[in-house]
Amino acid sequence: MKNSTVRNSITEDSREQYALAIDLGGTNTEVAIVSDRGETLARTRVLTRGYKDIDSFIEAVAQRAGELIEATGTAGQIVGAGIGAPCLNAATGCIEAATDLPWPSPVPLRELLTKALGMRVEAVNDANAAAAGEARYGAVKGMKNFVMLTLGTGVGGGVMCDGHLLSGRSGFAAELGHVIVNNGEGRMCGCGRRDCLQTYGSASGVVTTARRLLKERPEQPSMLREMDMEALTAADVSEAADCGDALALEVWRRTGLRLGEACASFAAFADPEAFVFFGGVARAFPHFAEALRESFNRNALHLYSGRVQILASTLESADAALLGAAALIL
Amino acid sequence: MKNSTVRNSITEDSREQYALAIDLGGTNTEVAIVSDRGETLARTRVLTRGYKDIDSFIEAVAQRAGELIEATGTAGQIVGAGIGAPCLNAATGCIEAATDLPWPSPVPLRELLTKALGMRVEAVNDANAAAAGEARYGAVKGMKNFVMLTLGTGVGGGVMCDGHLLSGRSGFAAELGHVIVNNGEGRMCGCGRRDCLQTYGSASGVVTTARRLLKERPEQPSMLREMDMEALTAADVSEAADCGDALALEVWRRTGLRLGEACASFAAFADPEAFVFFGGVARAFPHFAEALRESFNRNALHLYSGRVQILASTLESADAALLGAAALIL
Repeated sequence: MKNSTVRNSITEDSREQYALAIDLGGTNTEVAIVSDRGETLARTRVLTRGYKDIDSFIEAVAQRAGELIEATGTAGQIVGAGIGAPCLNAATGCIEAATDLPWPSPVPLRELLTKALGMRVEAVNDANAAAAGEARYGAVKGMKNFVMLTLGTGVGGGVMCDGHLLSGRSGFAAELGHVIVNNGEGRMCGCGRRDCLQTYGSASGVVTTARRLLKERPEQPSMLREMDMEALTAADVSEAADCGDALALEVWRRTGLRLGEACASFAAFADPEAFVFFGGVARAFPHFAEALRESFNRNALHLYSGRVQILASTLESADAALLGAAALIL
Repeated sequence: MKNSTVRNSITEDSREQYALAIDLGGTNTEVAIVSDRGETLARTRVLTRGYKDIDSFIEAVAQRAGELIEATGTAGQIVGAGIGAPCLNAATGCIEAATDLPWPSPVPLRELLTKALGMRVEAVNDANAAAAGEARYGAVKGMKNFVMLTLGTGVGGGVMCDGHLLSGRSGFAAELGHVIVNNGEGRMCGCGRRDCLQTYGSASGVVTTARRLLKERPEQPSMLREMDMEALTAADVSEAADCGDALALEVWRRTGLRLGEACASFAAFADPEAFVFFGGVARAFPHFAEALRESFNRNALHLYSGRVQILASTLESADAALLGAAALIL
């Protein structure tokens, strides 16, 4: 079994329940066995784009899952499988209109996996899976009202309101990356509209802000000027900020201001106890948190201003989605 | 018993359950006996501002309630009381920071009523009560995912998601009137911020749009020009539109465009099956519905565009809130 790890140190408890957890991403699909205490017993990876069609991909996932179950000796204790995937319609169990996956939509994911695995399968969109993981094991553990924003290639959301993770008519609730920001610069979004939050809060949004600022302030020295502008990443901007680069810090400040404004609107919708930030871009949380908090408190209605916690996820990215997928079942 | 009506034609059914329903408004407080089939057996009214303090007001409400129960012979079948009130924190049962009520906040409404009535009391904010009524007996009967907008003195909201009416941490979810609109004109809101949706979609918002348009188009004839600008109301603008007044129709078109943009954001949050418009200003629904629908479909993410119904409430204003208050109990 390649690319896989099996923990041997776990205390054996024959009564413990386990879930098969799957996090389907644009590049990799993570497969794991998770206990109801949130421990990952074993884990492996399938290349999402490594198969000729969806059937071969599903077959590969099922085979890896079988190997993990055998390696961990959990065959009799697996309650079911939970899966998080982009653009997943929780009502139908289908992936709909996913632009960064190699198969034509809709993909009847839940149905295919149920057949291939021979067990109960629960499926939600990836951001909701991560929110479920965060609620069960992470920064907002036990909290009944929070809004999670995943900042990565895109911007996604998960909203827990009154202890319930919002799904909506077709599982497309909390598409918070596609709320239009106020007084935007007219940035084009992949969805075809302009000024979606995602064009400011995603990795490429941060890069756009950096390029813009470098142009706006030709006199200001910055480490970023020494880099290849075409290849610049949000991680570069984060590293420059780590080194105290003033221009990079300003990029994160502006990102925080935008996110704070958006959160002010989200508060009016969900009346949350906390906002929690998750994903690759959220690793720069210490650089944008203060501006975000300040902007939120300035822009939010008095009912929410100063009353909502601004938090960073305490789970590793892949873990949150896997743990959340497991939480769908356990 | 003044100002009250009692239906005698109702078929007696000793097993039927009833609720005491209360709709507390800035001017009037409606009190009614409602059956679990949504029939109003009897109804009366208390002047919200007619008492020297909150205790005398509560006493008056309890007395009227007692009279209604006696008149309808429902004493043994009243399951409890449901009440909708502005700025009500459903978690504490208190009215918090209500600017248009005569008593100092917070008002421990649920506690006071429980003592005075001697029965179980459920309390929610007025917009949520109306949404509950609409969901049980109105335009979105049986629908599990919808967003309701109440257009009146202010703009309120109620969000039903996955069959659950969102409450949030303190019962202040769905304050949709206080979401900031994109590229606004800088209109001042009563909450102290600028360009809240309420400054465009409320009665006074419509009047502001009318005044602005009358100035913008000094050459265009309009019935509205003959009116006292200081005393102009949204109802006047609606009546002028009924008569085919082109300028008044343009006021409603602009109102619809703004509401449609806001609904595009709300869809990304709640993935609803329908938007339902309620309240005094929503009586002009036929004048703004087309622009709203067009604007929503143009501004919404492809996942929602063309897939969400735009509806007018089918309940009378006071009825929706009373029926919703009853639905909290029945």
